[in-house]
Amino acid sequence: MSTTHPVALIIGAGDATGGAIARRFAREGYTACVTRRNLDKLQPLLERIRGEGGTAHGFASDARREEEVVALVDQIESGIGPIEVLVFNIGANVPASILDETARKYFKIWELACLGGFLSGREVARRMVAREGLAHKGTIIFTGATASLRGGANFAAFAGAKHALRALAQSMARELGPRGIHVAHVVVDGSIDTEFIRENFPQRYALKEQDGILNPDHIADNYWMLHSQPRDAWTHELDLRPWMETF
Amino acid sequence: MSTTHPVALIIGAGDATGGAIARRFAREGYTACVTRRNLDKLQPLLERIRGEGGTAHGFASDARREEEVVALVDQIESGIGPIEVLVFNIGANVPASILDETARKYFKIWELACLGGFLSGREVARRMVAREGLAHKGTIIFTGATASLRGGANFAAFAGAKHALRALAQSMARELGPRGIHVAHVVVDGSIDTEFIRENFPQRYALKEQDGILNPDHIADNYWMLHSQPRDAWTHELDLRPWMETF
Amino acid sequence: MSTTHPVALIIGAGDATGGAIARRFAREGYTACVTRRNLDKLQPLLERIRGEGGTAHGFASDARREEEVVALVDQIESGIGPIEVLVFNIGANVPASILDETARKYFKIWELACLGGFLSGREVARRMVAREGLAHKGTIIFTGATASLRGGANFAAFAGAKHALRALAQSMARELGPRGIHVAHVVVDGSIDTEFIRENFPQRYALKEQDGILNPDHIADNYWMLHSQPRDAWTHELDLRPWMETF
Amino acid sequence: MSTTHPVALIIGAGDATGGAIARRFAREGYTACVTRRNLDKLQPLLERIRGEGGTAHGFASDARREEEVVALVDQIESGIGPIEVLVFNIGANVPASILDETARKYFKIWELACLGGFLSGREVARRMVAREGLAHKGTIIFTGATASLRGGANFAAFAGAKHALRALAQSMARELGPRGIHVAHVVVDGSIDTEFIRENFPQRYALKEQDGILNPDHIADNYWMLHSQPRDAWTHELDLRPWMETF
Repeated sequence: MSTTHPVALIIGAGDATGGAIARRFAREGYTACVTRRNLDKLQPLLERIRGEGGTAHGFASDARREEEVVALVDQIESGIGPIEVLVFNIGANVPASILDETARKYFKIWELACLGGFLSGREVARRMVAREGLAHKGTIIFTGATASLRGGANFAAFAGAKHALRALAQSMARELGPRGIHVAHVVVDGSIDTEFIRENFPQRYALKEQDGILNPDHIADNYWMLHSQPRDAWTHELDLRPWMETF
Repeated sequence: MSTTHPVALIIGAGDATGGAIARRFAREGYTACVTRRNLDKLQPLLERIRGEGGTAHGFASDARREEEVVALVDQIESGIGPIEVLVFNIGANVPASILDETARKYFKIWELACLGGFLSGREVARRMVAREGLAHKGTIIFTGATASLRGGANFAAFAGAKHALRALAQSMARELGPRGIHVAHVVVDGSIDTEFIRENFPQRYALKEQDGILNPDHIADNYWMLHSQPRDAWTHELDLRPWMETF
Repeated sequence: MSTTHPVALIIGAGDATGGAIARRFAREGYTACVTRRNLDKLQPLLERIRGEGGTAHGFASDARREEEVVALVDQIESGIGPIEVLVFNIGANVPASILDETARKYFKIWELACLGGFLSGREVARRMVAREGLAHKGTIIFTGATASLRGGANFAAFAGAKHALRALAQSMARELGPRGIHVAHVVVDGSIDTEFIRENFPQRYALKEQDGILNPDHIADNYWMLHSQPRDAWTHELDLRPWMETF
Repeated sequence: MSTTHPVALIIGAGDATGGAIARRFAREGYTACVTRRNLDKLQPLLERIRGEGGTAHGFASDARREEEVVALVDQIESGIGPIEVLVFNIGANVPASILDETARKYFKIWELACLGGFLSGREVARRMVAREGLAHKGTIIFTGATASLRGGANFAAFAGAKHALRALAQSMARELGPRGIHVAHVVVDGSIDTEFIRENFPQRYALKEQDGILNPDHIADNYWMLHSQPRDAWTHELDLRPWMETF
């Protein structure tokens, strides 16, 4: 199972974006390691990557469980290869009035969208800083959203988690940049071309014909671009939005 | 135990700031309800307020426990009076490299500085929106810090919690402002005149002679000012910092 | 003409806000010095201040002309008293598509809303830093707007001027705060109760009945509050908006 | 002199960055039109582009003069080809205490770094919106700096101009994005490998050996990347900084 190829680990490859990012790095010669809670659901992605000539491994892993994240990173580093790229791509919004929001949901959204980012970011960073003789020791990218920058009505839980994730990205960038790790935060502002949008927001989805929703492959291009930046000119944050999106 | 005075509830009156805010509202005729986890430690504050002619009640309450927060608000509303002002003032920073930060501490700092704000904010807001016949139904103020706006190296946990708290304040302001509740966020940027600073950062503390650290009473004045603003001119966010503080 | 009272200089007292600020400081015992380009139009304000028992002087002064600003400050400092407070309150928005905006108007809006702030801020700061034996040497407040923070469609000129004014306020605060001058920036977000709004936006104006537009006197209270802050707890920026305003 | 190649117009190709951007677009097949006030000084750049097999035209043009900018755009559009890309890259910082800053210099820095951006942005946008049958009608990129986001001590003039330029970029993006023009703002945070830095800040320049200053070619890659983004995933703002730069 061992290989000399560097690894791109995508935490949360359950949606179109995570999958597209995994495929992009696989096309560039990286071994794509992808996770979601349910391994069966990863099979189509793994098959697609392999069908495109890439190498991919799937892991059932709950990003909120420290021991699972530690074991995942151990397993990859010892059995597959050094993690050169980490993408944390988990987070789902379930809007609610602050008056109706439950403590359980408020916690779960944070746990999923933020704690998971902390756990995987820390574990991978620990490995990266230990690499010797490398100018650029690795890249860690967090996926943000409009709610990373603005707390809207009915968005207390999601905006809270996303604000916290952005604070994590900044803290890590300020500490780890000077140690050779490129930490970036991508603010995705707009609907993405996913099954979820297609089924639940058909009017939004219809904008696809005029490029009004984000193509996951195009999002993925930016993640690859970030990883490719030479270290004298690193981007910490960029936004991505369709041309017709109001902001 | 009943009274007709409106109540100012200060969650986290364990430090100098929370105590000063409680005393300020008590001086204005509010019944000060103050909480911290250890009731004994509240006695000096309660005595001081009463000695100044004010009314005060102390509560041992863990702001992170939903049932305790619900019970606290119930008890005050049914037995003491309507909560007209809520101040959430909990949050402590314990810096650590991201490489050394533990999941347990990362969670605890969020739980304390953010989840507690959500629980008390939600519970009190539920009561406030139900008040009839009032133009200004109440004021909810969250205490922020420099880390609310910037994720610094070694500050991943604290900045995450404080960013999330700020997102909460924004979400609540956008939802509840139009319903008559004034939600504000105060960014305290600088050292405060506390025992903690005096003992641990004596050089910082020495700046007190030239007004280089914040006087809790002056912070409290701003909380009172915010509550006093007429509803055509509400402030959502302001910063407070000593004249000589770098920013 | 000389007096021992400290002076509050309001540049741009042509609208309701500037006038209300002047009256507020006059009520606190300050000699109000108010300017606009047309002296005749200042008479009602001067008479009102005097009728309320205050002291006021009016000046026809074009804030965009360096020699006029220098002469104005000279005249006040030598003939009336030391300027303890400066409020710069000029700025008007005339929206236009970027495609239609003229260079002349783009320049004029900047000249009025920003250059005037620089000229009066610099001239007054030069006097303030020279005061000896004062811990708080003076207060300089700039009036901002929503466009200070966001460049909206059709707002290129106004947002540009207001962004630049905010940068000025920040630069001055960072340089002059440690020298004892309190520099603040007030973001007014919403319609103000003025003749202009009454005549041009009657539907907006009708919101006045439910406190949906800002009362200039309430804005003024915040300027006074800012000046009154002790130097261990200065606010650099605050926002003001009606309770029902979307943001 | 006519050609069918699309044009990339770089306003302010007097420094290393503007030149690198021009060369990058020339390598991609664009006709590079470059301007600075002194035509002679453009010769080395023109020769270098031509030596690399590219097409380039130099123009002596003062970006602060409306008639010159209008004539420049007319001349290129009628004689060379449609401007598909505009890069505005002018702006120089000359720090000064607010107490010493002259009105003349405050104005000149704004005129150069902001008014020039408005004039060229407007003129080119007018042409771009008129192109028919194109989904992506063109790209307009403004070069920003750290001072675009923060008004530091002694930076009142530069930060003012750069804040205003950022407001322009935002206003244009919000108006012109939905009309098919990609407007972006690049925040360059750090020293660039230029003659100026080499001669004036030799210690800074020495960081080049460890990639501590920005390589203009790498900055240019990001401008090309921005122009290449498909319209469903446009970036409005990104930052660029060396790995070891404090922020």
